[in-house]
Amino acid sequence: MILNKFYVDDLIKTALLEDINYIDTTTDYLIPEEQEGEAIFLSKADGVLCGIEVAMRVFTLLQPDFDYEIYINDGEAVKSGDIIAKVKGKTRTILKGERTALNLLQHMSGIASMTNRIVKIVEGTKASIVDTRKTLPGMRPLQKYAVTVGGGKNHRYNLSDAAMLKDNHIDAGGGITNAVTSLKKKLGHMTKVELEVRNLEELKEALSVDVDVIMLDNMDNETMKKAVELTNGKAVLEASGGITEETIRGVAETGVDVISIGALTHSVKAFDISLKISK
Amino acid sequence: MILNKFYVDDLIKTALLEDINYIDTTTDYLIPEEQEGEAIFLSKADGVLCGIEVAMRVFTLLQPDFDYEIYINDGEAVKSGDIIAKVKGKTRTILKGERTALNLLQHMSGIASMTNRIVKIVEGTKASIVDTRKTLPGMRPLQKYAVTVGGGKNHRYNLSDAAMLKDNHIDAGGGITNAVTSLKKKLGHMTKVELEVRNLEELKEALSVDVDVIMLDNMDNETMKKAVELTNGKAVLEASGGITEETIRGVAETGVDVISIGALTHSVKAFDISLKISK
Amino acid sequence: MILNKFYVDDLIKTALLEDINYIDTTTDYLIPEEQEGEAIFLSKADGVLCGIEVAMRVFTLLQPDFDYEIYINDGEAVKSGDIIAKVKGKTRTILKGERTALNLLQHMSGIASMTNRIVKIVEGTKASIVDTRKTLPGMRPLQKYAVTVGGGKNHRYNLSDAAMLKDNHIDAGGGITNAVTSLKKKLGHMTKVELEVRNLEELKEALSVDVDVIMLDNMDNETMKKAVELTNGKAVLEASGGITEETIRGVAETGVDVISIGALTHSVKAFDISLKISK
Amino acid sequence: MILNKFYVDDLIKTALLEDINYIDTTTDYLIPEEQEGEAIFLSKADGVLCGIEVAMRVFTLLQPDFDYEIYINDGEAVKSGDIIAKVKGKTRTILKGERTALNLLQHMSGIASMTNRIVKIVEGTKASIVDTRKTLPGMRPLQKYAVTVGGGKNHRYNLSDAAMLKDNHIDAGGGITNAVTSLKKKLGHMTKVELEVRNLEELKEALSVDVDVIMLDNMDNETMKKAVELTNGKAVLEASGGITEETIRGVAETGVDVISIGALTHSVKAFDISLKISK
Amino acid sequence: MILNKFYVDDLIKTALLEDINYIDTTTDYLIPEEQEGEAIFLSKADGVLCGIEVAMRVFTLLQPDFDYEIYINDGEAVKSGDIIAKVKGKTRTILKGERTALNLLQHMSGIASMTNRIVKIVEGTKASIVDTRKTLPGMRPLQKYAVTVGGGKNHRYNLSDAAMLKDNHIDAGGGITNAVTSLKKKLGHMTKVELEVRNLEELKEALSVDVDVIMLDNMDNETMKKAVELTNGKAVLEASGGITEETIRGVAETGVDVISIGALTHSVKAFDISLKISK
Amino acid sequence: MILNKFYVDDLIKTALLEDINYIDTTTDYLIPEEQEGEAIFLSKADGVLCGIEVAMRVFTLLQPDFDYEIYINDGEAVKSGDIIAKVKGKTRTILKGERTALNLLQHMSGIASMTNRIVKIVEGTKASIVDTRKTLPGMRPLQKYAVTVGGGKNHRYNLSDAAMLKDNHIDAGGGITNAVTSLKKKLGHMTKVELEVRNLEELKEALSVDVDVIMLDNMDNETMKKAVELTNGKAVLEASGGITEETIRGVAETGVDVISIGALTHSVKAFDISLKISK
Repeated sequence: MILNKFYVDDLIKTALLEDINYIDTTTDYLIPEEQEGEAIFLSKADGVLCGIEVAMRVFTLLQPDFDYEIYINDGEAVKSGDIIAKVKGKTRTILKGERTALNLLQHMSGIASMTNRIVKIVEGTKASIVDTRKTLPGMRPLQKYAVTVGGGKNHRYNLSDAAMLKDNHIDAGGGITNAVTSLKKKLGHMTKVELEVRNLEELKEALSVDVDVIMLDNMDNETMKKAVELTNGKAVLEASGGITEETIRGVAETGVDVISIGALTHSVKAFDISLKISK
Repeated sequence: MILNKFYVDDLIKTALLEDINYIDTTTDYLIPEEQEGEAIFLSKADGVLCGIEVAMRVFTLLQPDFDYEIYINDGEAVKSGDIIAKVKGKTRTILKGERTALNLLQHMSGIASMTNRIVKIVEGTKASIVDTRKTLPGMRPLQKYAVTVGGGKNHRYNLSDAAMLKDNHIDAGGGITNAVTSLKKKLGHMTKVELEVRNLEELKEALSVDVDVIMLDNMDNETMKKAVELTNGKAVLEASGGITEETIRGVAETGVDVISIGALTHSVKAFDISLKISK
Repeated sequence: MILNKFYVDDLIKTALLEDINYIDTTTDYLIPEEQEGEAIFLSKADGVLCGIEVAMRVFTLLQPDFDYEIYINDGEAVKSGDIIAKVKGKTRTILKGERTALNLLQHMSGIASMTNRIVKIVEGTKASIVDTRKTLPGMRPLQKYAVTVGGGKNHRYNLSDAAMLKDNHIDAGGGITNAVTSLKKKLGHMTKVELEVRNLEELKEALSVDVDVIMLDNMDNETMKKAVELTNGKAVLEASGGITEETIRGVAETGVDVISIGALTHSVKAFDISLKISK
Repeated sequence: MILNKFYVDDLIKTALLEDINYIDTTTDYLIPEEQEGEAIFLSKADGVLCGIEVAMRVFTLLQPDFDYEIYINDGEAVKSGDIIAKVKGKTRTILKGERTALNLLQHMSGIASMTNRIVKIVEGTKASIVDTRKTLPGMRPLQKYAVTVGGGKNHRYNLSDAAMLKDNHIDAGGGITNAVTSLKKKLGHMTKVELEVRNLEELKEALSVDVDVIMLDNMDNETMKKAVELTNGKAVLEASGGITEETIRGVAETGVDVISIGALTHSVKAFDISLKISK
Repeated sequence: MILNKFYVDDLIKTALLEDINYIDTTTDYLIPEEQEGEAIFLSKADGVLCGIEVAMRVFTLLQPDFDYEIYINDGEAVKSGDIIAKVKGKTRTILKGERTALNLLQHMSGIASMTNRIVKIVEGTKASIVDTRKTLPGMRPLQKYAVTVGGGKNHRYNLSDAAMLKDNHIDAGGGITNAVTSLKKKLGHMTKVELEVRNLEELKEALSVDVDVIMLDNMDNETMKKAVELTNGKAVLEASGGITEETIRGVAETGVDVISIGALTHSVKAFDISLKISK
Repeated sequence: MILNKFYVDDLIKTALLEDINYIDTTTDYLIPEEQEGEAIFLSKADGVLCGIEVAMRVFTLLQPDFDYEIYINDGEAVKSGDIIAKVKGKTRTILKGERTALNLLQHMSGIASMTNRIVKIVEGTKASIVDTRKTLPGMRPLQKYAVTVGGGKNHRYNLSDAAMLKDNHIDAGGGITNAVTSLKKKLGHMTKVELEVRNLEELKEALSVDVDVIMLDNMDNETMKKAVELTNGKAVLEASGGITEETIRGVAETGVDVISIGALTHSVKAFDISLKISK
């Protein structure tokens, strides 16, 4: 797992303390501590799996000698009916960790699967699919990782690691040229600069200054095609704003380099997976 | 706001530190510290608003004297084009808080709106709509609160505050009667007990012991109707399992008391709201 | 141990950092790192043991390969002179963990023993003994667990997981009937409702609405007997207020179902246990 | 308040999150947000008050503009029937903070009152009363502060800030003389050294090396009198071990300088205080 | 202040809890709570000030109504004898916050002053001065900010926000060309790529693939001059490795774009500032 | 390692999360998870090593089965060219932990080496070298430990564990005699008292009351010699203020007992150590 282990552990502890703030009344009072059990994670949908190591970590955090076997790894295709993993340990551990493990696995697989579906739609064009900062508190690493597992790429991680000038920044900086120049005097040499433009006039000015990426904000496909021509490879072009699974092929065919989609992380449909305890 | 203030503040800090782990490169380098700005939260969809006080708290945490006016409160209907709130403060504060405030507001309003839509579908029946434990790490209070704002009710908060016996508990406890009896010897007098049944045979045994709630797991409507008749008010009946907006009216008309829907919190569609900075 | 492991670990870390904010001056400067030692936990009083796994966890957190054998488990009777457990590891570990382990074990065993003494006093009546929310910051899970180990039961865990109407709630809600009705419209189906009454008039009104539990607040035994008759099984009756080991038998004999005692957790007498290092 | 504010705030937040992990079901659903209330803290026992500022902080953390007036301050005598403080704010704030504020105030006043009772018993002797490290996790600053408020003094705060040699340290160090000499080579000049002795032979050796304090461990009064004579002011003498309110006067009259009592913090009886909401 | 407020507050709380884990024995026992005092921050050296708002925050966190006036701001020149700020509040607050405020202010001003001295040395060349990841735990934002205040720029913030290929990455990736190509397939469009080269052969291969920045690792000035010629503006060139105040002018005159210096943050000399309490 | 393990782990986690807030872009995308590597820690300077166990802990926290061998331990002399330790594990672990491990090891060895150099300068005099509270936030235990490893001793750890009266305390306390007397009435018997004096008049008054240590603040050597004579062993004398490696021998020869040096922790020069990955 490439995710930071301390982050993952803290997130799981948060979830488990939320779910068991005192004891698991039913399980702790009815299931004997020594009882052992087995269970399988069973897929009930088709897509791309993501989060299986995170899900297993839920159980090993609860019980360090918990045993499991993974059959389908992050990034692999999964079909309804597939057994994703088999777990073995105390029945109490399985019952206490079940909900948290499923919540994480279903959310992450939901993101990876939606991303993958969209990546396939634009196959054959030069457009790559990226996420946004429209994530949930504390979930950004998990969500951004799931996008890459689905075949997408990550936009900037946060406000600190790349610059993006929107109209407020440009106004405050005295127009596109002045703002970009003034910003570049302060930025380190490892930070990319993106500029948001809303029409071809702005694009032309953007092209006259040295920015790495230009975001075409809510433009129609015709305008974007002209933008691609005008730009002619002098900057990376990103299409953004209200793009859906229905409309994205058309956008990709305008020739833009990157398409960013907020819904990848802000409107996730949980991927249906269940845990079957075989006893 | 009825949510625990310390919880809300901690969640917002988590989000803001995730989004600005060092500085807001673009804003801090381009926008003068003393510059003041104004902005409006504008709805671009129809539904039920939720999270407006949480969203405002993002800004007052960043800048204690930040000013705002709320026009639409949690639980009120909102339509596309409505101005939800007006905010006023340092431009830096608006730009730094924008994404976090929107992420929270859109997620919570998404939950409240979906819940409300479903509540309306079952109007006229006796069924109430409740959530589940299918929530995201650290988000449970926010998500469960949003369900109530949309007109739903909360199922048990977590594994500690109510008992629910599934088949593993029943097997380990020696059958329905023995398990319930043995559990009740340990439970305090303030804890409710729910029992999951998969067919009418199990229901009959469940009715012979004293449980507060019986969950009808993945039954078809015909079976549920019979369950309602058999039960005849001796326990609260909860329908659960794969119920969608399309099928829920039929479920409600079987006469069950409660319908639980995981999608309310596990498959949230962000409610479209934008921030317009008017300068 | 049924207590949430992350909670227990965090509590122990808090205690150990409080006790060693830099180094253990005496031990770290005098005892060689490689020196091994053995010690026994020795009871110096009679009662019910509680917290032995928590106490052992102090040492294994400090030294993962620390070795121990437990002779008396949580919930078992212990007599003065009994060896409770034997521990074996680095002398430094024993000396650094000693105070924290004893502080926890003595506190928890103090609670379990007092609870058990009281439970025995009411034996033969139908009354069960429960705790309250009169606990110390961060100690609630440990304290409530110790009550159950002593043979008591838990009242509601906190303000979130069950409802209890006191006079302020009733006044604000427009009287008993209105308040209960209005509350029930909002409560989920898994939440019990308790109502506090101060005299038989209030009890009668309480019985006319559907509440799960009625608390008889500071009533004398005669009145409680009448309350039991009046109620006749239609609600669970809880006696509360100023009940001591001296008076509790009489209360139990009135026929109430539950007696709650704040002193179980707010006035704990440490159970005398010492650690003898045998070298 | 001389206690570290960040510590106090964190402890209160811990307590309030423990008591309200989601919402205060009863209060949030029944009491209107805007309703204002008043209440008094009323003493139901005689002793020394401690923790009133901590208690008030519970409310101002929940509601920054919460209003209160304190009539009896930390360290002042309080009698049954005394009004300790009057508070005024939202009824919701009063009801949500009530239990946490009382739990803290009753615990701290319990410690201060017991300490004060014991301090008075030894009045006229030269003995001062000190606490120990027998405290509860996370509560040490609060508990040690309460001891000083009751007229006692603090023993070392933890294992880091003063050295105390027990027999294990002495054995490992090669006898009293060698151990003390070797320890002093490493200790800074601001750290005091205490040595535990179990009989007069050990005392004599202890007096031959330069230690600041000698602890007389579980000695009878006769032996302690001889120890006082032998020592003749060359070191501070501390009596320790199983000393109770009944036996302490005798111990004090042996002429020892300091008497340490674990029960001050490990067996606290809550001081009876109630909150009366006057509406 | 552009630093994230929550980060700064947490860091200050860490420092103050480290410095006052219980109470400030001397101050709390001797200085009356109500006593007011004034003090000045006085420079005893020449350089560039940094951290004055952070230092003031120490006091306002301890006492929200603490008053102060700043005469010299972050980034401004300061000379020995200059009064930097005047503070006014409770004497207790001044004494408790003094050490923490000075520790932070002296460290940050030390960094800004050293950076500024070096920036001036290279004035007139095209080289900009940047920091590294050689920072202290928890101090990175503070230290990197101080570098910018001194006129330097920031290298990548951490391992997440920009890519840098060292020889291990290149070996694992199958040589420069393959490694860069394979990495770029996964990187988002907002992430820059730097490649480390140790000689001109490697530089030539680096120039044949598309990387943003090339690091010249421990090259002598002659070789770097050749590198500048070879590169001819096709990539940003960064000189790195063992460069000191004595040798940096020569490095800058080779024509490299960026010089990175670990000592800016790993070998900070505290800037001499004292607090004079005027009573 | 005598440092508190929980403290060390938390500090390392802070550092690693600062350095990898999402993923290690370069390493995670290029180095295969299963690739194993080896590396050595190589000294490039002469001094006293400190922090090697802390550095190794960085790797075992990232990968529990990480393997290493230490050749030079804390407190041992190290020369340029020495191999300090050999590490073996996943290449990803080595690359992710490298910077954090080096940052800690270089900082701690820098402190130990400087301390040791100064300790040697005063060899043959009676003066011991101690640190101050001039440390960095969150780093105090590490920094104070490194001072002892270099042969120095620790001054008081913080404001809680020993008393030091400066002029403000003395003024507020009504002069030296009154202040000391009044403070001692409140202090426990395990707390030492130091008094700061600025001239021989103050010293004389200080000697007339019973304090453990007297700090000679910024006195010249002649005056200190007189102070030593006047004191004649009746108190420990500490020299403080602006003492450097150049001037310290003279100070030590005045006969003072203790010399405190802020620069040991506030102006640390990183000790040059590098990690060579041998593949």
